[in-house]
Amino acid sequence: MTTQKATNVTWHEGHVDRADRNKLLGQSGATIWFTGLPSSGKSTIAFTLEHALVERGHLAYVLDGDNIRHGLNKNLGFSPEDRNENIRRLGEVAKLFADAGVLVCTSFISPYRQDRDRARQIHADAGLPFIEVFVKASVELCETRDPKGLYKKARAGELKEFTGVSAPYEEPLNPELVLDSGELSPQQATEIVLLYLATKGLLAAKG
Amino acid sequence: MTTQKATNVTWHEGHVDRADRNKLLGQSGATIWFTGLPSSGKSTIAFTLEHALVERGHLAYVLDGDNIRHGLNKNLGFSPEDRNENIRRLGEVAKLFADAGVLVCTSFISPYRQDRDRARQIHADAGLPFIEVFVKASVELCETRDPKGLYKKARAGELKEFTGVSAPYEEPLNPELVLDSGELSPQQATEIVLLYLATKGLLAAKG
Repeated sequence: MTTQKATNVTWHEGHVDRADRNKLLGQSGATIWFTGLPSSGKSTIAFTLEHALVERGHLAYVLDGDNIRHGLNKNLGFSPEDRNENIRRLGEVAKLFADAGVLVCTSFISPYRQDRDRARQIHADAGLPFIEVFVKASVELCETRDPKGLYKKARAGELKEFTGVSAPYEEPLNPELVLDSGELSPQQATEIVLLYLATKGLLAAKG
Repeated sequence: MTTQKATNVTWHEGHVDRADRNKLLGQSGATIWFTGLPSSGKSTIAFTLEHALVERGHLAYVLDGDNIRHGLNKNLGFSPEDRNENIRRLGEVAKLFADAGVLVCTSFISPYRQDRDRARQIHADAGLPFIEVFVKASVELCETRDPKGLYKKARAGELKEFTGVSAPYEEPLNPELVLDSGELSPQQATEIVLLYLATKGLLAAKG
């Protein structure tokens, strides 16, 4: 292999410029951070958005409980400290995806303002867009949905530290978007996010 | 906003199929896991590969000490337990990137065979390619390079648990590639990895 012909591979010691990766993808990497109560509709909107973006030629990827809690964060529980660390790691991983040029959608309750603000700061420090989307729904509404029967178990005391019942949810003070899932269908909510991303110029490469 | 026109956004409850994302990108997501002694040349090859792939229209991204140790894993040190957890998290994050369709290159010493094998298993369980690349160089050669003077500090006892001096490095038994960085230039090593990826069909979308 040492006798192979000269090629156009050039030696590099650092990352590809973010702009070059964005140009390749025709978009700007960003984190779209969904937050809200259990059963508020975060995941449905996040997955609907993921599909809509990929159908439109954009690279999007959802980070959610299934691929984070069962993998990277499987050594964390639901105590306040573990929730902090869960969201800290999520923020760091989302930042890496955004840096790689991906439109990454995170779908976690992320109940504490301080944790979400820290994720926002991590992105700000890296010069990456962070779009906090509050999926708003009353506990009463979420409780009537409750597809997995979790609220019922929490009310019965079978689930401890359940957000909205026995653990707090701190509403965002200045989210980029508020989507009222009692008023909007998942499709309508997704359309609003798509419009927001386009308006912010994220569905085109930035220099 | 609730009066907007009907659109072609369809409600989804789960991820985009991996094949659809690969088709969008014209490649198959995979992890290229570089392992070797400090100063063996891992990062130079990984970054050269990242540039070469992006220049050829492929989405690649390097995970290394700079973006992992200073972010996601900044709460970990260099004890054996912390090294385990460092590499465990790295394996999980690499898997997410590969799942998202990215050709992700990890550049970590990753000295323990068991840790690397666990990362391999995480990928196997997810049906994702894992390419272990052993960047081979003797301790003596690495020590003559030593751009950051780390071997020197380790020999002087100023750096504890330094791989190759005061902490073990377990060579891979069955890596997909061995690149002898005493024999190959970073360009030549990169050419070999590119050829391997092409041969394995990863530079085209898989169904």
